[in-house]
Amino acid sequence: MYVIGLDIGGANLKSADSDGAARSIAFELWKTPELLQTALQELLTSYQRPDLIAVTMTGELADCFQTKADGVDHILTAVEQAVPGVPVLVWQTGAEFLPPDIAREFPLLAAAANWHALATWLGRMIPDQHGLLIDIGSTTTDLIPLQQGLPVTEGVTDVERLLSGELVYTGGRRTPLAMLENRVPLRGQSCPLAAEYFATTADLYVLLEELPESPEDIDTADGRPATRANAFARIARSVCCDITELSEEEAIEIAVWLAARQQAQITEALDQVLSRMDHVPETVLISGSSVFLAKKIVQSHPLLAQAKVTNVAEIFDRSISDSACAFAVARLAAERVRFSTEVEQPD
Amino acid sequence: MYVIGLDIGGANLKSADSDGAARSIAFELWKTPELLQTALQELLTSYQRPDLIAVTMTGELADCFQTKADGVDHILTAVEQAVPGVPVLVWQTGAEFLPPDIAREFPLLAAAANWHALATWLGRMIPDQHGLLIDIGSTTTDLIPLQQGLPVTEGVTDVERLLSGELVYTGGRRTPLAMLENRVPLRGQSCPLAAEYFATTADLYVLLEELPESPEDIDTADGRPATRANAFARIARSVCCDITELSEEEAIEIAVWLAARQQAQITEALDQVLSRMDHVPETVLISGSSVFLAKKIVQSHPLLAQAKVTNVAEIFDRSISDSACAFAVARLAAERVRFSTEVEQPD
Repeated sequence: MYVIGLDIGGANLKSADSDGAARSIAFELWKTPELLQTALQELLTSYQRPDLIAVTMTGELADCFQTKADGVDHILTAVEQAVPGVPVLVWQTGAEFLPPDIAREFPLLAAAANWHALATWLGRMIPDQHGLLIDIGSTTTDLIPLQQGLPVTEGVTDVERLLSGELVYTGGRRTPLAMLENRVPLRGQSCPLAAEYFATTADLYVLLEELPESPEDIDTADGRPATRANAFARIARSVCCDITELSEEEAIEIAVWLAARQQAQITEALDQVLSRMDHVPETVLISGSSVFLAKKIVQSHPLLAQAKVTNVAEIFDRSISDSACAFAVARLAAERVRFSTEVEQPD
Repeated sequence: MYVIGLDIGGANLKSADSDGAARSIAFELWKTPELLQTALQELLTSYQRPDLIAVTMTGELADCFQTKADGVDHILTAVEQAVPGVPVLVWQTGAEFLPPDIAREFPLLAAAANWHALATWLGRMIPDQHGLLIDIGSTTTDLIPLQQGLPVTEGVTDVERLLSGELVYTGGRRTPLAMLENRVPLRGQSCPLAAEYFATTADLYVLLEELPESPEDIDTADGRPATRANAFARIARSVCCDITELSEEEAIEIAVWLAARQQAQITEALDQVLSRMDHVPETVLISGSSVFLAKKIVQSHPLLAQAKVTNVAEIFDRSISDSACAFAVARLAAERVRFSTEVEQPD
């Protein structure tokens, strides 16, 4: 049984096969939803033809779709047409795979289910413990309590998860600074940030040297490379300055303050989630493309500092950890479908 | 002396001649700065060839330009090439016009000077009073104290104006909701807004029926028309819901709360500006494409409720008030250049 897992987001398409070969491409779904099928075909060229495609998604929230039902339908149709003749299964927050037509009937169960697939798959690493998964990506953070290896959350849909603290809409790379906070300290005063898409959280962490420079990465607010010099210029622009008007020390002061605010926001949500748990987690699993933030937050948290911390990226290959949700659905599908075949064989 | 004034912003190009014929076009400068010259030529086709072009701008802050100096230079070159052979003058925050080459030498004086041209021109309506200009546009608000008909501000550059409260980076149409606030009330709790460009302030005011529906206007977060039904859907998406998950009553509750927060933010800045003025303003001039907000804020303000309020849009034609900064530089240039010709004649 050779399975390929897909995690179809609004800005990235991620894939992994059940053997661990992972690949992702940037794809701005909200701009060109009609090109999704072609982009998926390109993403899949590096794999052999699978026996099964397992899908999870968040891209149905993109505003090119009038409703999530439209989004789920469009995404599933693109997958079906990208690999005609291959069976497709969709992960649901009900903790099972369903065929596309049933997923289309219950779109809110398939919508934004990738966190659930990841938590279900990773939870099996700690079947007998009280655990917590902290996954920090480029734009969002998931905080998932685990019990007997299974996710035990208060929220299922995105809005329930926002209200419960289990989804924090902030991440280590793509969050616009003016959506993180609307004022920053400057020259002994409080300065409003320009309400524009001028700089993102990656600029904070590159300027502060917590993320490496990536001159080849132009997925930034102004399309210029993710270097320290450009991060400085983008942060300066976020208070309507260019680099002749703001010193590097002032930009660093702003970045230190905003980074602390972001970590405080995640910690507040974490406290909200922990307050509902019966036991302090014995193990904290940390993952996501901004796992460096998860590590800092756990280390500085009074209740979690004693927990065993497992960095998922150190167990798996880097490429898998970046496509962890895709790998999760691939593995879950490979195991479950084999199981159901075994069960059915005696018939 | 036939003068055309231009106000070159990051999202709109506005023009007016000294006789009051005004016209504006949407132009996304940050996306295609190389098309500015062509766009200006198109904007100017409806006018006769002018004796003089008077320019003011804010577009130099667009992040297609590495620095404001680059932006000022690019914008002025595009103007010069759009109408070859016609003299160009540029308004400066030093309260005078300068030729382009000198403007290029002092780019921070030409940068974001349009508020200053407007205040200088409108201030002459109240030459003997303590006054205040409140201009609320689609993305920004200017709060300009006037004395003896002249702007008397603490800040000159954008960052100084942000710090002083004289520039509030919020407006009645294009401000993304998640840049206005990051949490809203929902179902008796506080819900984070998605840190995405899902809805803007126009959606609040269209949903609340303070702005009319504009089915032909697709300059919205998702590119769908500015109707009440779409505003509801966009606000729903900003808490990760579609219209099947959030009631219209809940969307209205969110909109009422965010509208109140926006007005409170402007009022806080207003109090900061008023606290530095020697006298309570006798006359408040209100203007801008979101003048309806200025009216509400003045009416509810304890110190300003007694002042004489003059709505600039009720004095001038609607098309002029939408291009007020362009008309201001056209009028100022027509008067000043005539004056200097008269002065020079005796020589």
